[in-house]
Amino acid sequence: MGEKVAPLSRLIFQFERMPGIGHKSAQRLAFYVLNMSRDEVSAFTSAVTEAHEKIKRCSVCCDLTDSETCAVCGGVSRDRSVICVVEDPRDVMAIERTHEYNGVYHVLHGVISPLNGIGPEDLTTKELISRLSDSSVKEVIMATNPTVEGEATAVFLSRLIKPLGIEVSRLAYGIPVGADLEYADEVTLSKAIEGRKSL
Amino acid sequence: MGEKVAPLSRLIFQFERMPGIGHKSAQRLAFYVLNMSRDEVSAFTSAVTEAHEKIKRCSVCCDLTDSETCAVCGGVSRDRSVICVVEDPRDVMAIERTHEYNGVYHVLHGVISPLNGIGPEDLTTKELISRLSDSSVKEVIMATNPTVEGEATAVFLSRLIKPLGIEVSRLAYGIPVGADLEYADEVTLSKAIEGRKSL
Repeated sequence: MGEKVAPLSRLIFQFERMPGIGHKSAQRLAFYVLNMSRDEVSAFTSAVTEAHEKIKRCSVCCDLTDSETCAVCGGVSRDRSVICVVEDPRDVMAIERTHEYNGVYHVLHGVISPLNGIGPEDLTTKELISRLSDSSVKEVIMATNPTVEGEATAVFLSRLIKPLGIEVSRLAYGIPVGADLEYADEVTLSKAIEGRKSL
Repeated sequence: MGEKVAPLSRLIFQFERMPGIGHKSAQRLAFYVLNMSRDEVSAFTSAVTEAHEKIKRCSVCCDLTDSETCAVCGGVSRDRSVICVVEDPRDVMAIERTHEYNGVYHVLHGVISPLNGIGPEDLTTKELISRLSDSSVKEVIMATNPTVEGEATAVFLSRLIKPLGIEVSRLAYGIPVGADLEYADEVTLSKAIEGRKSL
């Protein structure tokens, strides 16, 4: 195309705005769309519209769902006395994949990050605290990411929760399974030594 | 999300089918869509639908356009006696960016590739040959990629075109400007020596 063809450059521009998509990838995706069948295009656009319209936050844990409460909060076999606090719905997916955790979740939808102007009031802090007023909750596991912001958020929330007489725990730090000690960073390695267990 | 939320997994699946998008990227894009405003979503879906509906092939050169002929073929200052044959609309974009070429194009929409079952009849070969029946065309530049298939396609087409008394040329091979000789592959380097010019 010599000069820009308007509908195509609009489409490229739309893809280019998405995270992790540069100009070349946006072009590739736009050309892929042009080569789709009419049915494929309508399946794609309706998937976009439908997901955007139907997916909302679970009224209990703020995870994403297409019904009133999510599958975990609605699950009969879940232990509601343990709440695992995560940053993001993807973190719930990751923990669920382990098939090891049987409690429920609370999704913060972010972390406290003063540099980006995100305070506790921008997260689902209020919803979390109101869930804890129910005396059945015995433990809150802080599963925010091991970053500066994730750490600060975990500390901030634990100071709010501990006075309620609820146990607050944090995910264990250590060397990832299958990793090579040689390549582990110093902080991780010293955390791993600190948290060592007797065999 | 514990179990899969249907509209979301459908959206992830749709993104995952696109070229160069793996599962993680598809997830990232789907979450980006969920965080878009309603207006952004409709701008995105209408860009997709509109591009797919409106963009067709130029009736002359088979490049993509949203009108009957593309901007190059409709351009008044273009030299219609030279046709540059390329594989893909993106190649037209690349050549136009040089601002050095003033002829017109012909887009093959692929290359001959027996392994993938693509023969000359799957490309716009017929359209190219019918353009050449007009005696005003003096030269055809083969600008297919310097790959095995691109090369074979150039040779195949030149055998069809030369008997018509039209000059056929091929893009020059050589070392790319700004590259380091040390890292040039042997074939490129020997082509560069072969095609040397006097200073």
